[in-house]
Amino acid sequence: MERIQLAEDVSLSRIVHGMWRLSDWGYSQEEVVEFIEKCLDFGVTSFDHADIYGNYTVEEQFGQALELKPSLRDKIEIVTKCGIKLISSNRPEHKIKYYDTSKEHIIRSVEKSLKNFRTDYIDILLIHRPDPMMDPSEVAEAFTQLKEQGKVKRFGVSNFAPSQYKLLNSYLDEPLVTNQIEISATHLEHFDKGTIEQCQMDRISPMAWSPLGGGSIFTSTEEKVNRVRNTLEKIQGQIGAESMDQVLYAWLLTHPSKILPIVGSGKIERVKSAVSSLDIKLDSQQWFEILEASKGKEVD
Amino acid sequence: MERIQLAEDVSLSRIVHGMWRLSDWGYSQEEVVEFIEKCLDFGVTSFDHADIYGNYTVEEQFGQALELKPSLRDKIEIVTKCGIKLISSNRPEHKIKYYDTSKEHIIRSVEKSLKNFRTDYIDILLIHRPDPMMDPSEVAEAFTQLKEQGKVKRFGVSNFAPSQYKLLNSYLDEPLVTNQIEISATHLEHFDKGTIEQCQMDRISPMAWSPLGGGSIFTSTEEKVNRVRNTLEKIQGQIGAESMDQVLYAWLLTHPSKILPIVGSGKIERVKSAVSSLDIKLDSQQWFEILEASKGKEVD
Amino acid sequence: MERIQLAEDVSLSRIVHGMWRLSDWGYSQEEVVEFIEKCLDFGVTSFDHADIYGNYTVEEQFGQALELKPSLRDKIEIVTKCGIKLISSNRPEHKIKYYDTSKEHIIRSVEKSLKNFRTDYIDILLIHRPDPMMDPSEVAEAFTQLKEQGKVKRFGVSNFAPSQYKLLNSYLDEPLVTNQIEISATHLEHFDKGTIEQCQMDRISPMAWSPLGGGSIFTSTEEKVNRVRNTLEKIQGQIGAESMDQVLYAWLLTHPSKILPIVGSGKIERVKSAVSSLDIKLDSQQWFEILEASKGKEVD
Repeated sequence: MERIQLAEDVSLSRIVHGMWRLSDWGYSQEEVVEFIEKCLDFGVTSFDHADIYGNYTVEEQFGQALELKPSLRDKIEIVTKCGIKLISSNRPEHKIKYYDTSKEHIIRSVEKSLKNFRTDYIDILLIHRPDPMMDPSEVAEAFTQLKEQGKVKRFGVSNFAPSQYKLLNSYLDEPLVTNQIEISATHLEHFDKGTIEQCQMDRISPMAWSPLGGGSIFTSTEEKVNRVRNTLEKIQGQIGAESMDQVLYAWLLTHPSKILPIVGSGKIERVKSAVSSLDIKLDSQQWFEILEASKGKEVD
Repeated sequence: MERIQLAEDVSLSRIVHGMWRLSDWGYSQEEVVEFIEKCLDFGVTSFDHADIYGNYTVEEQFGQALELKPSLRDKIEIVTKCGIKLISSNRPEHKIKYYDTSKEHIIRSVEKSLKNFRTDYIDILLIHRPDPMMDPSEVAEAFTQLKEQGKVKRFGVSNFAPSQYKLLNSYLDEPLVTNQIEISATHLEHFDKGTIEQCQMDRISPMAWSPLGGGSIFTSTEEKVNRVRNTLEKIQGQIGAESMDQVLYAWLLTHPSKILPIVGSGKIERVKSAVSSLDIKLDSQQWFEILEASKGKEVD
Repeated sequence: MERIQLAEDVSLSRIVHGMWRLSDWGYSQEEVVEFIEKCLDFGVTSFDHADIYGNYTVEEQFGQALELKPSLRDKIEIVTKCGIKLISSNRPEHKIKYYDTSKEHIIRSVEKSLKNFRTDYIDILLIHRPDPMMDPSEVAEAFTQLKEQGKVKRFGVSNFAPSQYKLLNSYLDEPLVTNQIEISATHLEHFDKGTIEQCQMDRISPMAWSPLGGGSIFTSTEEKVNRVRNTLEKIQGQIGAESMDQVLYAWLLTHPSKILPIVGSGKIERVKSAVSSLDIKLDSQQWFEILEASKGKEVD
């Protein structure tokens, strides 16, 4: 599978798997191992996490699988995040949902992630949300320390607007390597806000969460979703794709910014289908037809 | 007439003529020659085009006039554009309206423009609209090749937001020389979005399309237009201008960013009137009175 | 009191006093002297003005106090502004409210301010509002001349969006030292528009006008204000603050951008209370609880 070189020492598989919902799948440790191995068979080597996923449980569930089969660690890349604090029985000290990007919290969160994953390094650590209270010099200190200790290889962000990305970048010794944002045919916000342009400007590739639009494409009766679904079905026929999913992935993969879609499914056949979409190439008219269906009007 | 030096080797007349509607004027080839010559008499030497104007016919109609009188070519500057693909009987392969800023399309479009104009160079080529599918490195390759072949002297864009302008500029060997945007007393979008500020920041001059607000100033009964019209009439009286047009042009010409208004009329007396507006200077209070009439409130 | 070094040669007290309403307080010259001396006793040495305050009268009223006690001048920093022209019986030549950032006006306005203040220098001069007619090269010329003549030590702006700040900065020999903007728990605009981020990016500290939200917090029955007030009262109890004011100031002072709040009250006990808020530190949960009360929803 195509790989995207995010930095000299870190590359990700073009299709990333997202473990957001791992705790909902009812998998045993053995089944998680098996799932990871099948992903690896398809060339999907990169796994996206966050400290808070599964109410603070997913990292450890994944780590238990790595413990069961330690040889997996060197074959995969772990992306995880910190910076959000949830109201949770697992964090009784949180009275509200808020952000914390203090040096102390970033370091403590990574230490916990390392323990959860049964590993001694994270490939890429992301700040999960732009924090209005962020002190960029504290974040920079935390990153420098974690890097020097070999605990994190590279750093990125998630859901950052261009101005927030530039701000943090301006305080760092080494540039951020990615911005993980919501992009899909039904969620065009980051085309409109210039986030994708800023990735192109900074020569980085965005990671896309919810690349299928959160599944609403199959169920929603909203007018916009209807329009997009009809267009996807038409183009699916034209190009002989196996599913609408594949057209949605292809729509992202065709974009020149080299978007890395995060596949969130626990069903291995859907991961396989996402991987197959790498062989599909939409032409410009097909790409714009989907865009215009989503916008509800032709381009200006 | 005042000239604006957009680059070392290209300057435009402060008043530019726009050929958008040439195909509607019912002019013979001889009449087009005559019209161009009269523009030249007034000092208007720069003519704005696009591949798509007149349903892909205007460039050639203009070129036929240049063929009739080849000596005109060296006395004028040709600005043209590419990047929009229209649904048109002249382009049956287009099933939808979309953008194409691929290297291949840019080069093919310029080749066609050169043939249409019966010339071997374009003075300034603009990318017509910001393309969400733009691969800036492809655009850069196309520009480099066209420049090296002597087919285009300089490059610019049209309707680009500041972030889009910066993105493309960051991939080019030579900076963009202009951004052609809609600016008029009734269309303040680019004051609000920072596009004009970005031109000032990058030390370039914007070209203004629809500098009279698309003619609505004479016909619309919209409240905003009424307010602006009343203010224009009052100020026209104060400064002894011949027409509201002149006050509208003067409003643009007074701005420090050195806006180049594009006059779109096929009536030579209206071109003359636009040229005369260069002699009018609004004072600050008059300038703001028009701005505030358009906004419907005084400044903060 | 903590001081903020805005430039090599100018620092302000962290709490600034704003003289906006001086002419409404009914103070004699002696009482103004006494008020300034009490501020100095608290460590408040910086006084914020504008040419237009009190319908063009405040600067002179303050200057008369300085005339009465000339030794005060060297103990204080004077911040003043220019660039707005008000309709006023004191400026009969103004027919509308408008902006003027021409070189001529900036210099003339400073000359007048120097006379009003009975001083030969201004510590910091701010352009009061972003002017759509601003010619940044003229502003730069005015600043250079005023600096060379020793009439103004440093320059800043007020109410500038990030793009406007960058534009002006790009024309100046010396960078702007501050952006005075409206920030309070009930006015989050500059968190949302990236203005505060841009201050952090440019390593400058913003000054905050209306840091209490214009007093509406005590009187408004608006739902948003109710929510914020309830939260402030709760947190006031938690931290043992003397007043809601103090919680509002502490909310600003806790932010890492080192915001300088401008206290606008003529009552010395309220200045004292603001100064005491420097000893209060909100924890992250308290800070976000106020933010979320203002937004009416938790963070994403």
